[in-house]
Amino acid sequence: MEAVKASVPLTILHNAIVVTMNSDSLVFRDGAVAILRDTIVGVGNSLDVLGQFSGSNATVIDLHGRILLPGFVNTHVHTSQQLARGIADDVDLMTWLHGRIWPYESSMTEEDSYVSTLLCGVELIRSGVTCFAEAGGQHVSGMAKAVETLGLRACLARSVMDCGDGLPAAWASETAKDCIESQRELYKRHHGTADGRIKLSLGIRQIMNCTDELLLATRDVARELNTGIHMHVAEIPYENQLVVNTRNVDHGTVTYLEKVDFLGSNLLSAHSVWVNNDEIGFLSRAGVKVSHCPAAAMKMLGFAPIKEMLQAGICVSLGTDGAPSNNRMSIVDEMYLASLINKGREVHSAGQTDPTALPAETILRMATIDGARSVLWDKEIGSLEIGKKADLIVINPCSWSMVPLHDCISGLVYSMRTENIVSVMCNGQWIMKDGKILTVNEEEVITLAKQASCQLLKRAGITIPERMKFV
Amino acid sequence: MEAVKASVPLTILHNAIVVTMNSDSLVFRDGAVAILRDTIVGVGNSLDVLGQFSGSNATVIDLHGRILLPGFVNTHVHTSQQLARGIADDVDLMTWLHGRIWPYESSMTEEDSYVSTLLCGVELIRSGVTCFAEAGGQHVSGMAKAVETLGLRACLARSVMDCGDGLPAAWASETAKDCIESQRELYKRHHGTADGRIKLSLGIRQIMNCTDELLLATRDVARELNTGIHMHVAEIPYENQLVVNTRNVDHGTVTYLEKVDFLGSNLLSAHSVWVNNDEIGFLSRAGVKVSHCPAAAMKMLGFAPIKEMLQAGICVSLGTDGAPSNNRMSIVDEMYLASLINKGREVHSAGQTDPTALPAETILRMATIDGARSVLWDKEIGSLEIGKKADLIVINPCSWSMVPLHDCISGLVYSMRTENIVSVMCNGQWIMKDGKILTVNEEEVITLAKQASCQLLKRAGITIPERMKFV
Repeated sequence: MEAVKASVPLTILHNAIVVTMNSDSLVFRDGAVAILRDTIVGVGNSLDVLGQFSGSNATVIDLHGRILLPGFVNTHVHTSQQLARGIADDVDLMTWLHGRIWPYESSMTEEDSYVSTLLCGVELIRSGVTCFAEAGGQHVSGMAKAVETLGLRACLARSVMDCGDGLPAAWASETAKDCIESQRELYKRHHGTADGRIKLSLGIRQIMNCTDELLLATRDVARELNTGIHMHVAEIPYENQLVVNTRNVDHGTVTYLEKVDFLGSNLLSAHSVWVNNDEIGFLSRAGVKVSHCPAAAMKMLGFAPIKEMLQAGICVSLGTDGAPSNNRMSIVDEMYLASLINKGREVHSAGQTDPTALPAETILRMATIDGARSVLWDKEIGSLEIGKKADLIVINPCSWSMVPLHDCISGLVYSMRTENIVSVMCNGQWIMKDGKILTVNEEEVITLAKQASCQLLKRAGITIPERMKFV
Repeated sequence: MEAVKASVPLTILHNAIVVTMNSDSLVFRDGAVAILRDTIVGVGNSLDVLGQFSGSNATVIDLHGRILLPGFVNTHVHTSQQLARGIADDVDLMTWLHGRIWPYESSMTEEDSYVSTLLCGVELIRSGVTCFAEAGGQHVSGMAKAVETLGLRACLARSVMDCGDGLPAAWASETAKDCIESQRELYKRHHGTADGRIKLSLGIRQIMNCTDELLLATRDVARELNTGIHMHVAEIPYENQLVVNTRNVDHGTVTYLEKVDFLGSNLLSAHSVWVNNDEIGFLSRAGVKVSHCPAAAMKMLGFAPIKEMLQAGICVSLGTDGAPSNNRMSIVDEMYLASLINKGREVHSAGQTDPTALPAETILRMATIDGARSVLWDKEIGSLEIGKKADLIVINPCSWSMVPLHDCISGLVYSMRTENIVSVMCNGQWIMKDGKILTVNEEEVITLAKQASCQLLKRAGITIPERMKFV
């Protein structure tokens, strides 16, 4: 191949089970992937790919039968909440929001957000995530700085609110116009930076903290900028009820968003638990993407009708949500949970569990190519195909947790642990290799995070009651 | 302390957060545990315990702020099914049982059972389990040999069946008498062996494979031997319906077991998903112990009314079930799931989720002291108290998965990963130290297991369909 010269950074990973996640669901038993700078230039059987690039001065890496997958996409994660892990476990929703999360988030500095995103990033990388969608925090520049350092790919978003009861003082004064202007600024500053690894979406926290002015301006500015919108939608029955009471529709948030022409293929609708069949139809017809967050749903919200959404052709992907809603930020655990929860949920929707619901191959699509579609990035990531960016992970299945591997695909969903992921590449760069994160010093991040989180809780005036008799 | 001489094997673990799980829920912030041979002889503040044994020639280990907990008790695990991981994912229940599990189990040899239990034991140890209740397999002597080697504590049981449709030929000929006799033999051979680490319970697979003769003989022989009974109870609606149709009661298995005076405080009732309020009352009044297996329940069975059982005072513990029902055999993951599932289940039982249901401290009791009660071993294990056996685990909370640790107790349930468990002691012996299992060669076990499982599937004639296009 003439285009590849001796000096060109070409890497060939071979002797791997390559699960491409392409539209044919091709898997190469003894496969290889060739990477030139940030781009995949070859995928196929090891012998073919090695032969194709035999004249080049490539770095050739033998993966000894390990499994290659596209990097996972976590489509709903609050990176700024990582320092809040454990501050709101086992409390009711109002205590959670007004007593813990809002005081915490409104007391954060940009530096806190940077440290929190670094810590969260370590967990994302370890769980095989190469791209994530930020659910919305206050200090996007802090996040962007961390993402640039970590080597990850991200759609960042600011959390904006221009109305609502009980908002912290620092937030209560923002108008819809302020919210939009600040996001235009952030878009200018960060969109397309970090070698193209950072994109900016518009954020809306939730309909209960959002005037119609903000809602419609967000819709229009997103169209103008040709970018996505990330919003929490239909999380709890109370939200739907409030929408019915105040916004003159007969069901809830999704019905209202349909009415005001807000639903579109650029909307990433997080959670979306409390939606009825009509609303599933609205989401489907508009091409809305849904981020399903199984652990947070179980802990706080309820069971989303995921099987019905998939049947309606909605693109559903997976998210971890934030650390105070879930504690574990591993998309690997969310894959396992997504299958379990939706098998079990059939008891209530159909009278008995359905162990065949959401099979492993469906779950893998949700975590890869459909994650990429959810963040409007599927032309460049989400599968291992020639021309796409080299975002990929290496899995070692020869451990106590995955042996025996009678079914390679189900093993990736049901048996694989976060710790089976040994190497992670994003945009052609190794960000974790053989279990070691290369872009940040993990121990330093942990030390920084401990310090920052303690100081932050003090500033926010949050104390956690003791559950046992400490002496 | 005069009784302790220089030559005596005394170990002191100090500078740890000691979560005792005693009846006062005492936690020592800077605590220590002293161990003489197989027994705990001191628990308290580090300075106090170090002072108490200052004249002795103890091995003193500084745990540098790590967390000490009693070893976990996994009260329902099929160790013989470990080699069947991945053979029955995403299939309906009849395919699961008749097409996969029965052919697999009936094709096993005693050596297979030994290897399977070794592999399962590695996962149990890594997840902090020091004691487990075998749910019932065919070759108890194979299991016992593995348990002796692994250094674990176990209640073993044989799976017996004397009737039922579709049984493999090798099993269909056993009478109730055969079943009882074989278990008397096993009891004689194994009960109290391995330095007292092995006990034998009587097994009943499930009521659909059990005549009244076998049921009542099991009840009586268990009383005679003063041992436990381990039985799958009320797993699926079909089971209850069959009992109603054939055994002249108005609800299901638990109602029938109450009627024939089978329920007692020595019964470990696994799953127990489909029980109504009357039946919860029966279980409670009889002192029956329930093993809740959250992952398997979600995947296959449905949502057990655990909150109601706890409110009724039933002792509920946690189990992983077998690898084909769950894939992950980690009691750490089950703790996380048990809380999530039972918070979420409130949507269906009470109209909305209850994030305060089954708080972390309750879950920790289920996995420790109530696990010990479930296997009738709580006088010797389940908490860190003077006089009890030294079954304990060391947890390193200073990793990406648990930082920050604002709430130490909830961190153990919601954030802790299996991999945070670094050392495990059973009966006073380290069986894992600093991440390395000391009793078996883990790589050899994995190699053996791969070979044995492939041969076993061939013998059993089981093939797994491919889910993607493999080339």
